[in-house]
Order: sequence, then C-alpha cells, then structure tokens
Amino acid sequence: MTTALIPFAPGFEEMEGVILVDVCRRAGWTVDTVGLAPGLVQASRSVRVQPDRVWDDLDPLTYDLLLLPGGAAGTEALIQDVRVLNAIRAFDKAGKWIGAICAAPLALQAAGILKPPRLATCHPAVAQKLTTVPRQSARTVVDGHLITSQGPGTTFEFALTLIRHISGAALADKLSREMLLA
Amino acid sequence: MTTALIPFAPGFEEMEGVILVDVCRRAGWTVDTVGLAPGLVQASRSVRVQPDRVWDDLDPLTYDLLLLPGGAAGTEALIQDVRVLNAIRAFDKAGKWIGAICAAPLALQAAGILKPPRLATCHPAVAQKLTTVPRQSARTVVDGHLITSQGPGTTFEFALTLIRHISGAALADKLSREMLLA
Repeated sequence: MTTALIPFAPGFEEMEGVILVDVCRRAGWTVDTVGLAPGLVQASRSVRVQPDRVWDDLDPLTYDLLLLPGGAAGTEALIQDVRVLNAIRAFDKAGKWIGAICAAPLALQAAGILKPPRLATCHPAVAQKLTTVPRQSARTVVDGHLITSQGPGTTFEFALTLIRHISGAALADKLSREMLLA
Repeated sequence: MTTALIPFAPGFEEMEGVILVDVCRRAGWTVDTVGLAPGLVQASRSVRVQPDRVWDDLDPLTYDLLLLPGGAAGTEALIQDVRVLNAIRAFDKAGKWIGAICAAPLALQAAGILKPPRLATCHPAVAQKLTTVPRQSARTVVDGHLITSQGPGTTFEFALTLIRHISGAALADKLSREMLLA
C-alpha cells in the first residue's frame, strides 16, 4: 500500500492540494493531509480545509511520498518551518519520492536538495527565485525520486505521472479516462 | 460585480468544487460556497471543507450564478433538497446562469428544467440516468444561460467558458495562461 503525506500550509493553492489528494486516493493510495498546526487551514483563494492530521502527531518518514502543493504564502510557510525542511532532507536521503508543484519547488531549494545536476521546474512567476538549478521548461519533470511541476493546470498530469511510475500505466490511464482528462 | 453561489453538499466532488471556486475568484468574482447545513462538509474523496455560508442564512436569488459541482452522493444530496431544486427553477425562470458538472446535471433534470430542445451533457458514468434530454458528446455545453460539463478533467474549461461569456475572452485567456493550462 502506497502512502502519501501532503502538507496543507496556510495559503496553499487549494486546486493543487485537492487535486493531488483526490487523484492519489482514486489510485487507492493512503493519503494523509497534514496541518502545520491544529485547526482549519485557509488556502490561497480562501477555501478553508480541515487537514486529516497535525504535523507534530505523526512521523513523516513512515510515508512513502511527500507531496507539496504550491501557492506563494503556502510555500513561504513551508520554507519557514524547520520540521518541513528536515522532512524534505530526510526523504531525499532515504531516496523516497518527493513532489513539489508551482512555487513549492522553492521549498526543496530551501532544504538544500536542489543542486546540479538535478532537474526541476516551477511556476514561471517564481522562476527567478529558483537559483540553485536551471529551471526546466517541461510542464512536469521527473528526476529520480524527485518530481516537480509548474502550476494548477499541470496538477492532474503531475499526479498521474506519479501514479504511472508507482502504480503502473494501466491504472494511470484508467483514472485519466474516468476523470475525463483530454 | 459578478456573484456566484456554489453549494458544497456532502459527497460533492472536491476537485470540481474547489476548481470552480478558485478560478471564479481569480476572475475577481464574489464567490460564496454554501453548506446545506452548518458545519464541515466531507467531500467524495474525504477532503473536509468549511463552506463560507449556510443555505438557510442566504437568498440564492441575490446571486448571478448558481454552480453545482458533481459527485454521486453530492448530486443525490442536491436532488433530495427541495430548497436547491426550487433555486434551480427560480434561476432558470429569471434567466440567470446555472452551471452543473459531472453528475450534477441530474439535479437540473430533477428540478424539471432539462426538456427538449435544451442541450446538456454529464459524466458518461451517469449518462443512462439523463433521460429527459439527449446527452451531448461535447465536454462542455453552453445553451443560453445553462452550462453543463462532464467531469473533473473538464472543470477548468467549464469555469473558463463561463468567465469568457461573462467577463470576456481577454480575462479568460489571461487566467488560462497564469494557471498553466495547456
């Protein structure tokens, strides 16, 4: 059983967060959303979500994947949280899947895991803040156990690319059809 | 100022609901999500959301648009709620925009507003339940003030089609680019 941990930080991009959770659950994975503190989290366009768990009540390394939705303020909250940065470093060291989309690749950079020859992308609006590796132009970039993607409109393909790698192309294709992706 | 009301019924499809809210707010519209009862709403893949308002505390007809996310259980909850069916009929009578995606066109049917020569579509999985009009094969169908669409993977284009009609193509194209839609 594949398990994924998805932080919902204040100001996270709610389309990216919810698409990731929903599509990974459709794949049969166990997905926990986690707040950095207890209580409701207000996302970037003011949708309020109740995460499944609270960060201090879990051990991130018991999960197979760590997936970071973007959003400017959400990403800044991840960067300011040493627990999150430590988890990113630990996942990388363990060779576990780490995904980040939109602005969230900047949190990978802040954790120090984006160095050449690593390949990554991010939202074009934050391209100039991605300084430790060249920004790839592809919409979704897989480099070993690291996957990055550009924004809300690439979230479905980001999730399905992960599912393709971990659970196989047949399942990814089936989900794509059921969700009416073009 | 364009105003939209989006019901979050228990079991609504959270990707559809959240994409609609987020994209319409990016367009500068005033969007209220509304629960059928007070409290958190659990969506189809177990994401828990706190709606902005409660149905009994508002007058639906003060809004310009009524937009219905799908989800099997969410749609059934809409169909079982006479307040929702009455609002659908009132919006239709007033010539106000009504949108429904995935299974939610079945709620329009239950309200009695889908009759020939009206054009509509829905998710292929519920096609056989759409009996009062033929199901169109297009991913998103606009017929007067009625817009219907097929599922999670068509939600961005559903929202952007509405924005194109109401706020213009320039804004819709700008949002499409900013969200990295292909």
